[in-house]
This record gives sequence, structure tokens and C-alpha cells, in this order.
Amino acid sequence: MVKKGRMHMAVDQRKGDQSLAFLDPVHIISSASIVGPKEGEGPLGDFFDLISQDAGFGEKNWEKAESTLQKEALTVAAGKAKLSPWQIRYLFGGDLLAQLSATSFGAEESNLPFFGLYGACSTCGESLTLAAMAVAGGFADYAAAITSSHFGSAEKEFRFPLAYGNQRPLSATWTVTGSGAFILASQGGYVKITGVTPGKIVDMGVKDNMNMGACMAPAACDTIYQNLMDFNRQPEDYDRIITGDLGYVGQEILIQLLKEKGFDISSQHMDCGIEIYDRENQDTHAGGSGCGCSAVVLAAMILPKLRKEIWKRVLFVPTGALLSKVSFNEGQTIPGIAHGVVLEHC
Amino acid sequence: MVKKGRMHMAVDQRKGDQSLAFLDPVHIISSASIVGPKEGEGPLGDFFDLISQDAGFGEKNWEKAESTLQKEALTVAAGKAKLSPWQIRYLFGGDLLAQLSATSFGAEESNLPFFGLYGACSTCGESLTLAAMAVAGGFADYAAAITSSHFGSAEKEFRFPLAYGNQRPLSATWTVTGSGAFILASQGGYVKITGVTPGKIVDMGVKDNMNMGACMAPAACDTIYQNLMDFNRQPEDYDRIITGDLGYVGQEILIQLLKEKGFDISSQHMDCGIEIYDRENQDTHAGGSGCGCSAVVLAAMILPKLRKEIWKRVLFVPTGALLSKVSFNEGQTIPGIAHGVVLEHC
Repeated sequence: MVKKGRMHMAVDQRKGDQSLAFLDPVHIISSASIVGPKEGEGPLGDFFDLISQDAGFGEKNWEKAESTLQKEALTVAAGKAKLSPWQIRYLFGGDLLAQLSATSFGAEESNLPFFGLYGACSTCGESLTLAAMAVAGGFADYAAAITSSHFGSAEKEFRFPLAYGNQRPLSATWTVTGSGAFILASQGGYVKITGVTPGKIVDMGVKDNMNMGACMAPAACDTIYQNLMDFNRQPEDYDRIITGDLGYVGQEILIQLLKEKGFDISSQHMDCGIEIYDRENQDTHAGGSGCGCSAVVLAAMILPKLRKEIWKRVLFVPTGALLSKVSFNEGQTIPGIAHGVVLEHC
Repeated sequence: MVKKGRMHMAVDQRKGDQSLAFLDPVHIISSASIVGPKEGEGPLGDFFDLISQDAGFGEKNWEKAESTLQKEALTVAAGKAKLSPWQIRYLFGGDLLAQLSATSFGAEESNLPFFGLYGACSTCGESLTLAAMAVAGGFADYAAAITSSHFGSAEKEFRFPLAYGNQRPLSATWTVTGSGAFILASQGGYVKITGVTPGKIVDMGVKDNMNMGACMAPAACDTIYQNLMDFNRQPEDYDRIITGDLGYVGQEILIQLLKEKGFDISSQHMDCGIEIYDRENQDTHAGGSGCGCSAVVLAAMILPKLRKEIWKRVLFVPTGALLSKVSFNEGQTIPGIAHGVVLEHC
């Protein structure tokens, strides 16, 4: 069977263009969101597909719990799309842990050709971008994108053992326990991906691992600015511009940085990390974070609003802070990266 | 500017097909290999672009040394292709460290839109596959693929502090200090990528992190078998079938496993990990490993032989062992993954 690649537009790179416009858009034909109890108690609790009452998901450690989250999310998404596993040609996935251990053991059973991705909390955007390119390029009839994070495994990976009960500054975010899975195809969906803006690594020299919002805001600014320039759009051409997990601190910085570049997004901006928890009652300080954060908010809130045409066009920008324990302890900065995905009602 | 996607062929997935054939092949227009002193003293020493006499590459820690390796490799590869950095549209890269810290800080200065990848030592295959898809799909005029590993940073990441001087079993491999970079385009190269076989995660239950060859051989077998089936080829249709870093132990297992599936590759098989060191004189036991291993052997040895038409067609199969310190200590198995790339003289 010979297939023809789909067409897309690539604007002149010398102007700094880094976006792709899919002239034949890629459809999100199904999605799934699975979260832990804390997320279930938050403002979006009614909209997730599954809420576990046990953050351990019946497993004996957090890493295995996160793998189970991913397995279940992919199963639910494939089921909603009425697909047998073999019909998904490629799986694009990642998580926050060293060597993607949650994803490796989560993806194993699916028996799908697998591309492991790491973009910190921006991985949901990276996986959607590459899965969309695979479908738009004609390389896959169906491609899946999956990401996850887990509060327990992430604190262990990046900060302190939970049992220490250490204090968290107000600029700290709370890693979301959750996984979002998405099935992409060339047709048949209710939301389409019409373009992507893969992000650059942006480093403003911030070194505070308890203030991820400040680390990531410059990268979000860079990607959003580039998206507006590449597509020749104004902020009001989007019903919402939705970052991944800048939280309250990062939101303020992002809006200010973009104002300095000539764009006021204060009316359009929304942040998944702000939406997922109740700041007053859930003690989550600056908001939620993790590559599960933007993924479950996309599945539970953003896609349904696009489907119902409450929003017509949204710029979805998962944001990542590129640090490791080792680089942090060696005194390195925390660069950011953000990948933009243009989502439209169809 | 509107570009037309290139054509490719996707065989019937119900037969388990997972390969892509690029009817309009993607060219590798330049490559670069940079290694440390030990690799420079090995049998391929004459063929690397740069050999550092200092494994620290002038940096104050191994992680920074590895980032420097990557920066230099990309610079050399771009220079050989006579490209300005802005002409490379997307960078696909990764390394072995937690959260890809070597790549994050290595890629930062390039200021290119960046996709972070993790496939353990298979990442060179993963990056070439996705970069080839980006070019073949018409999404990029030029795409770059880069991977690295460093003996010092890898031992720290996965095993024991070097200062312990702990004994290594004969099945252990030696992580290569090196980085390979590749620039891909739709024309203008001397070697073309005519197809890819993205791999699945294969877990045979092996748990020995001092015997990576045994962990990865089943994945290599799966990908090579699938490649031969998808393209309807016999082993002799390839001048060489070259795995990443199975080493002596993994090589034996791979050849046996494929024999059981009806293919004898003993005349074609070669392993980058075996080629890069002198087993007798360099005390490297089962061979070299790391995602720098297959990358520098590709750049220094495989591509030149294809260019000179000593070989006409090669199946290049970087192999990865998906473990982390945490998953290993929690008693998990070590699954493998291998991505196949078909390289031909042009």
C-alpha cells in the first residue's frame, strides 16, 4: 500500500520560523484522563475519566503506580476510539523520571513501536507534536501520545523524601498524579491539530528548583511569540492561550514578558496548573505541575470545550523545566522549553 | 511556501508491520564524531573527527564534559555540511543521563527547536528515525540528530562512583565517551536512509545490570526479524547488520535467537560495541556501550564504508537497555528496545 504524504506549510526559516501548519489537519479522535485522589477532589474532579481513591494504584511503589496510570490511560483512550491495539502504529510517550522508567514499564505491555520522549513537563506537547507529524506525514493511520507524572515519584526524583515533611515555599508547585492519553488520526475526530510550534531551550539563568514557574515562563514566552509571528496572529485569534504548569508565579512573568514583546495575552491566558487545584483549600501553593498536569487538563477540560465549540481555537503550550538532581546540585541553571500545539474545533 | 509531503510506503499493519520505506529517501549529508582518549586509542582511532586528550573536555564535571562533546559534534557536522545553524530546522537529541541533562545543556546554545529523546543506547536510532521522518514528511529541509554518552557520567548515573574502583564482571560493557551528530536532508548526501523499523519494548525478564547485552539481544532480534519480514529481505540482502552495543555476550544470544526464528545473520552481523575497543588490550570486557557508541561508529566507520561503496546496504540497529537506578533497585527487569535504520550507498 502506497500512501501519499500530506501537505503542510513551512514559512521562511530565515525569519526565525519554526512552526508547521498542517494543511490537512490531524484529528484527535479520542482521549483519556486518569488521576489520583487529590486531583479528583479539585475543581476538575467531575471531568476526569477515572479517579483512583488510592494514589498507589494498587502497586507497591510510586513508580509502578505511575506505569499503571499510563497503561490504563492508553487502554481507555484506545477503547473510546474503538481501536484494537495493533491499529495504533506508533506510540510517543514520556514522563519525568530518570530514564523514563514509568513510561518504559507502562508502554511495555502495549507491544507498540515506541518513541521515548523527554521534555520535562512539556512532554505532552512534544508527544502530540511528533504524533501529529507522524500522521500528517502519512507515516501512521493512528498514532498515540501519552504522558504521566506522579506526586510521589516526582518528589523522590527531584526533591526530598516525602517522609521528611519538608516545608514548601509558596512559589513551589504540586506535581499532578495523572496520565493523559490521546489517539491521533487523519480524520474522524472532534478536535483538530492545525499547527505546531516546536520550542527552543530558553535559559534565563534561573536556578531555583522551588520556582519552576520562573524557570519556564521565558520559554513559554518564546514559543507563544513565535507562534503568533509564524501564523501572523494576534492573541485574540485564540479563544485561550493555555500554558502547562507555570502556576501563579509563572503566569505573571509570562504576561509581563509578552507585553514587553508587544502582545497582551492577559485576556486569553489560562494555565493548566492553576485550573487543576483549588488554591485556597488544597494547599498546592503556586499550582499543579508535571507532564501529567497539562495532559489531564487537555483531556478533561480543553478538548471537551473545543468539541462543544465553547472555544473555536486554542493555543496549547505545555511548559517544561529542564533540570536533574545532578545538574541542580552541580549549580547549573534550570532552562525551560515549551511546545505549542494549535487546537481547533472541527 | 507550500511544500509537498514525500511519499512513503507502509505495509499492512495487520501482519505486524512496523517499518516505513521512504520512496524518496532521506540523505545523510554530513556527520561528525568526537571521542575521548580511550576511544582514540582503540582500533577506530584514525577515523574520528576529533579525539580529546582530556576525558573532561576542559570542564569541571563529567556532565558538562558530555554537553561540550555534543556542542562540538553538532558544530562540526553543521560546518561540514556548510550550513548556518538557522538552516537546521529541528534538532533531535538525547543521552543516557536522568532528564537528558547532557543534551539539555549541550543543545541550549544551538538555539534550535528541540525534541528531547530517550531510548537508552538506542537513542541514535530513534533520533535518526524521527529526523528522517521530519525530512521525508517535508517538515524540514534540514534536520539534525545527535546523541552522546560519557564513561564518567554514565557510571555515576547507573553504577558506582569511579573512585570505588569496583570490579566489573566480564559481561559488563564500557560506556563510550563520545558524541555523534548527523545532518539529514532530502538530497545532497552520499548515504541515504531508505527505511526505518521503529522498535518495540521487549522484556525477557533479565535483571542483571552488568549484562546489558543479554537485556538488549531479544529487542535487537525482534527489530531485525521485523525489518526482514516488512521489507521481504534475507540477511544477505544486507552487507552488514550492525547492532549498537550488544557486545560479545549479546552477539551470541542475538545470533542464536534469530536462528530460532529462521534467519542466520552470523555472516552479516557486526556490533559497534565490539568494533570500538581492542578487547585484549583495553580491558573493556564485553565491549563498548552507550548512545555515543553506535553514533561515533556510524560516523567514523559505517558511513565512510557506505560512501566508498565497500558496502551497498546496511541495517543499523542501535540497541537500548531501559533501566534506571530506581527501577533496578526496586527489583524491576531491564527491558530492551532497538530501532532499525536502513542505510544505502547513493
